[in-house]
Amino acid sequence: MEQFISKREAAERIRVARHRAGITWAQIAEQLGVAKEWSTAALLGSHPMTAAQATVVQELLSLDDAVTEALQMQPYRGPLSEDVLADPTIYRFQEAVMAYGPTIKELIHEEFGDGIMSAINFQLDVARRAHPDGDRVVVTLDGKFLDYRW
Amino acid sequence: MEQFISKREAAERIRVARHRAGITWAQIAEQLGVAKEWSTAALLGSHPMTAAQATVVQELLSLDDAVTEALQMQPYRGPLSEDVLADPTIYRFQEAVMAYGPTIKELIHEEFGDGIMSAINFQLDVARRAHPDGDRVVVTLDGKFLDYRW
Amino acid sequence: MEQFISKREAAERIRVARHRAGITWAQIAEQLGVAKEWSTAALLGSHPMTAAQATVVQELLSLDDAVTEALQMQPYRGPLSEDVLADPTIYRFQEAVMAYGPTIKELIHEEFGDGIMSAINFQLDVARRAHPDGDRVVVTLDGKFLDYRW
Amino acid sequence: MEQFISKREAAERIRVARHRAGITWAQIAEQLGVAKEWSTAALLGSHPMTAAQATVVQELLSLDDAVTEALQMQPYRGPLSEDVLADPTIYRFQEAVMAYGPTIKELIHEEFGDGIMSAINFQLDVARRAHPDGDRVVVTLDGKFLDYRW
Amino acid sequence: MEQFISKREAAERIRVARHRAGITWAQIAEQLGVAKEWSTAALLGSHPMTAAQATVVQELLSLDDAVTEALQMQPYRGPLSEDVLADPTIYRFQEAVMAYGPTIKELIHEEFGDGIMSAINFQLDVARRAHPDGDRVVVTLDGKFLDYRW
Amino acid sequence: MEQFISKREAAERIRVARHRAGITWAQIAEQLGVAKEWSTAALLGSHPMTAAQATVVQELLSLDDAVTEALQMQPYRGPLSEDVLADPTIYRFQEAVMAYGPTIKELIHEEFGDGIMSAINFQLDVARRAHPDGDRVVVTLDGKFLDYRW
Amino acid sequence: MEQFISKREAAERIRVARHRAGITWAQIAEQLGVAKEWSTAALLGSHPMTAAQATVVQELLSLDDAVTEALQMQPYRGPLSEDVLADPTIYRFQEAVMAYGPTIKELIHEEFGDGIMSAINFQLDVARRAHPDGDRVVVTLDGKFLDYRW
Amino acid sequence: MEQFISKREAAERIRVARHRAGITWAQIAEQLGVAKEWSTAALLGSHPMTAAQATVVQELLSLDDAVTEALQMQPYRGPLSEDVLADPTIYRFQEAVMAYGPTIKELIHEEFGDGIMSAINFQLDVARRAHPDGDRVVVTLDGKFLDYRW
Amino acid sequence: MEQFISKREAAERIRVARHRAGITWAQIAEQLGVAKEWSTAALLGSHPMTAAQATVVQELLSLDDAVTEALQMQPYRGPLSEDVLADPTIYRFQEAVMAYGPTIKELIHEEFGDGIMSAINFQLDVARRAHPDGDRVVVTLDGKFLDYRW
Amino acid sequence: MEQFISKREAAERIRVARHRAGITWAQIAEQLGVAKEWSTAALLGSHPMTAAQATVVQELLSLDDAVTEALQMQPYRGPLSEDVLADPTIYRFQEAVMAYGPTIKELIHEEFGDGIMSAINFQLDVARRAHPDGDRVVVTLDGKFLDYRW
Repeated sequence: MEQFISKREAAERIRVARHRAGITWAQIAEQLGVAKEWSTAALLGSHPMTAAQATVVQELLSLDDAVTEALQMQPYRGPLSEDVLADPTIYRFQEAVMAYGPTIKELIHEEFGDGIMSAINFQLDVARRAHPDGDRVVVTLDGKFLDYRW
Repeated sequence: MEQFISKREAAERIRVARHRAGITWAQIAEQLGVAKEWSTAALLGSHPMTAAQATVVQELLSLDDAVTEALQMQPYRGPLSEDVLADPTIYRFQEAVMAYGPTIKELIHEEFGDGIMSAINFQLDVARRAHPDGDRVVVTLDGKFLDYRW
Repeated sequence: MEQFISKREAAERIRVARHRAGITWAQIAEQLGVAKEWSTAALLGSHPMTAAQATVVQELLSLDDAVTEALQMQPYRGPLSEDVLADPTIYRFQEAVMAYGPTIKELIHEEFGDGIMSAINFQLDVARRAHPDGDRVVVTLDGKFLDYRW
Repeated sequence: MEQFISKREAAERIRVARHRAGITWAQIAEQLGVAKEWSTAALLGSHPMTAAQATVVQELLSLDDAVTEALQMQPYRGPLSEDVLADPTIYRFQEAVMAYGPTIKELIHEEFGDGIMSAINFQLDVARRAHPDGDRVVVTLDGKFLDYRW
Repeated sequence: MEQFISKREAAERIRVARHRAGITWAQIAEQLGVAKEWSTAALLGSHPMTAAQATVVQELLSLDDAVTEALQMQPYRGPLSEDVLADPTIYRFQEAVMAYGPTIKELIHEEFGDGIMSAINFQLDVARRAHPDGDRVVVTLDGKFLDYRW
Repeated sequence: MEQFISKREAAERIRVARHRAGITWAQIAEQLGVAKEWSTAALLGSHPMTAAQATVVQELLSLDDAVTEALQMQPYRGPLSEDVLADPTIYRFQEAVMAYGPTIKELIHEEFGDGIMSAINFQLDVARRAHPDGDRVVVTLDGKFLDYRW
Repeated sequence: MEQFISKREAAERIRVARHRAGITWAQIAEQLGVAKEWSTAALLGSHPMTAAQATVVQELLSLDDAVTEALQMQPYRGPLSEDVLADPTIYRFQEAVMAYGPTIKELIHEEFGDGIMSAINFQLDVARRAHPDGDRVVVTLDGKFLDYRW
Repeated sequence: MEQFISKREAAERIRVARHRAGITWAQIAEQLGVAKEWSTAALLGSHPMTAAQATVVQELLSLDDAVTEALQMQPYRGPLSEDVLADPTIYRFQEAVMAYGPTIKELIHEEFGDGIMSAINFQLDVARRAHPDGDRVVVTLDGKFLDYRW
Repeated sequence: MEQFISKREAAERIRVARHRAGITWAQIAEQLGVAKEWSTAALLGSHPMTAAQATVVQELLSLDDAVTEALQMQPYRGPLSEDVLADPTIYRFQEAVMAYGPTIKELIHEEFGDGIMSAINFQLDVARRAHPDGDRVVVTLDGKFLDYRW
Repeated sequence: MEQFISKREAAERIRVARHRAGITWAQIAEQLGVAKEWSTAALLGSHPMTAAQATVVQELLSLDDAVTEALQMQPYRGPLSEDVLADPTIYRFQEAVMAYGPTIKELIHEEFGDGIMSAINFQLDVARRAHPDGDRVVVTLDGKFLDYRW
């Protein structure tokens, strides 16, 4: 049987290949014609790509066939390892959920009733906002409201 | 020594008192003249209130002095108990961090360099966005970029 | 401030009150005009009840006002404590998820594509199926398919 | 000693081989003449196959002998790794057990007395139910009732 | 609402009451006409008692009504707290499962095929065996074989 | 330095070699002239074998020298990995300890005083008991009583 | 039913009562005519006392009857809570087991063969050893060797 | 870059090499002119050796250069893996700390005041003590007292 | 027996009493004539106070006798609960240990040889350092070097 | 695709290469013209290096290109594995945070108000302080104060 690799291994190879090629995540997204948040997530293993999308990336980053195949497999999405969760750049989002989770819950229920923000019918945006005291990172989570419906 | 209560106990009493009074979190914020995300977080224990703010809330919700005092104490911010983290409305945010944490990290570093979004110099917004397929919950996290600086 | 109790404490009182009153969960459901799975879950703390529903239960089981109020509060749904998860009657469902979780995942993706069964737009049924070798417990989980949609 | 592989490794190879061969889990089941839930579980490592069954699969998917041998070994069934349990498609079943586990327990005891639904004398069904608001995933767990009997 | 207590609290009270009354677990079993292993387990919270059985115990140990009621409630069976599992008298059974669990599994499958020893249709015996080098504790676990049957 | 393997790796190889050779655990025990529970435990890594015993097994199962050497090394006995403990055939013994651990403790203390059943000066028996409702698995744990003695 | 308390609660009361009475652990041991290590362990909940011993302590420390009764109950021995294990005075013993556990194991097996030091047929000594660079704490663990014997 | 190995890997190789060479831990210590407890700990990875010491061991056990180099590296000391901690020979020391940890703490504070036994300025002795009821393992922990000193 | 409280409960009362009295931690330290880091730690439960010190605090903060007594008891020092460790003000120190722990270890060994910085013979300083880009928190840990000495 | 290695693997190789080369961490820092704390952290994986810096190190320590590349990759910073955290040299810093964490928090809030010491805009110093009773390790943590600012 021919060699294959996991999506996790594929993500590692893609991080290195992108670094070597000197191409940005945003440029890859542009080539694919999709949001940079979606394509980066797919390349790191959180969404399956079509064969056509995987081929575009393969050419941009000079990847092996095994990587291209892994990009098309159905993912297991989670969890992050402790290594990743404790990284300060990611941990601050955990910290925000800790400090404001119950607040978000109360305000969702007040505005929408008993239900949740979907993390499936969902999109993400990461942007820069200029500010005189220092620029700001603005991350927007945008998901469909789903109500408990028996 | 006079009775005192923890901020966690105060939060429980406030949730019930608000329910009994039939006042919304947004109305409380309006009375305080602050963002509803900040005041709800403060009432649930994540920010200290000034004596003046605590008095406004006391009158709106007919709270005991012990609750008012607790609102002014310096908080310990976290973590959420497992009970709270596993609640589906809050868990979806965990799930989004799981699926997209490394993506957010890559995109912050690509845009800003080596550093983090502050969760201290930080603000939060929870809003509704109308959509023909069903309205959406939009949660915006907005924090100052901090670079690793020796 | 008047006394209040948590939904967990309310559930404990309801279990005892139901035992003392000699009324079945199914009879309570019938009085409420809802599925027995929904009403039992609500009485054990997983769904909020309307004031009208809570009053029906209060009369059937001779409950205190604090219990009735707790039934109407917005719930935190989970997780089960280790005490509850390890109970053999409940653990067998964990065991089934362990043995068949990846199977269910593969078959959902094969039939529906990349997505999930909603646990929010969801209903449950617990029934008896007669069988010559011994009757069987049949539990049906029925949730809307949600596809990953950016 | 000749090479051998674990059932977990075999499952990984089968997932890739099936993807490459473009055959569905249902088609494999049909060739074996068994339920698709049983055969998928067996191929992913939760049931031992007979030599005859393993040979059918070997031919369909062009598998190595080591995979065929692994399929016939007695399995260890569980637990799922955290990676797998946190995948949203599988996690929703955990969430359903969290929200409704005590409800299921009460209703089993009310209908059958003190005992459990067997997860050994047990079968599973995964199906699609058409619905105007969007089709639904219906998962049926069907196990023999076992009463505590000293 | 009248006072009630948990089965765990009831077990604590029974341990003390038995100590004060100077009655053995075996004598209680004899009064109930059941195996001492079953009655001790029931008194410690692992089996529900009938009203008649609970009344016999109430008289023997001068228990409150709340204890008698708790004995009749449907139990949640487990898990043991870490406090209990680490007690050396109980831990040695954990240690035996650690050292011999896979052995027991191989020998059950060799003798019976793919399946388990039921812990539901199950009984237990604790006995003394005289031995010249020091008497021995003999614990017998006896459960129905259940085969995986789809 | 010549190759060597761990006892865990040796156990994996022995499970496969036994399967390929079509020899039962009981037949191996017979060749060794010991109880099948002892020899199976030794082959799976829980007891050291003498060189003579290891050679008998090597010939029966056509094992490499590295396996034979590993069988003679002093073992580390435990714990079982979560993978193994959660296997239903083994988990039922955990469940029995959960349900009956405190019962066993009370009955040992009642019969013998303050002390434990040794898991070192200890033997195990796994047997079949015929029964009209279905045959039963009978597992006997037999260890020397050790009293707390200062 | 008369009040009773747990051994843990009794230990807390004894620590305070000893402090108030200004009596040393060694003096209590002397009154009891036993090693100070045994009596301190018994007073902190790790050994049952006889009624006579408990009465001696009751008089020395002016304890309630509930404490005296608790001292005579059969203990559950462990584990220490994380609070206790992380205390530096106790943690250093954990650290010593971490650094030297495998060394102790190798040397026991080299001297005695396959077996263990009993923690049941066991005694402990805590002493001061004068030393010019600063006095030393000398803790001696002395337990019967038990060999694996089938 | 030339091959290197971890201290853990080195320890595994040394255990096997010692077994093959038929040399005791005590004999190695004698060749090194140090206590057998120190040298065994160093060989298992808990102390760095000098180049001279490592060379003596290399010759005695016919070790590769990579092992000799690893013995000289600065160690990370802990923790033991769960595999090692649960081994009964080592676990009994954990159990002794559980049963007697608070006792040791009280007696150290009574004798020395507020402080600890050092695990750094520390030595260990493992010995046999003959006894008519069976010989005993005597383990002595001997560390400098360190008082809390600001 | 007179009431007593734990050091943890005492710390909670002291935090509230200090807030009510409007006295700073530094002022308390000044009254005691000790470093503010030592006295704050003692008041929060990490060091025992003398009776004289406890009386000074009692008068400053109008504390009950039970608090004063608790301040003099020998402490258990740790660990912090998860609640406390996850607080962002404290967590940043954890994060610094994560990012720089191995660095600190290498530099200590390079400068001092094999050993540790004592956390017992140890003092702490927390100070402000003015800086044009914003003032800085400077925390100094100062402990005696202890070398591994057999 | 050319070989690449993780930063963790790179750190292991650097530790060995430095040992072989007989160069100190301080000398490497001197060649790089940066603080020894920063460069050691970067070499152990906690900061990215520039290509120029990585080349300097490559020449000093004769490293492979894969190591040099890894040094330039963006790091994931944490957490430390349990192996590393439990090492006594590092653990003492954990212990200090345990004993003094709440003290540090109170004193930061008293001096600066509600906020934290940044671990990002942060620098570290490790130094020796001579002392007649034995030299001392002095570790200084110096981070910008960040106030909670909405």
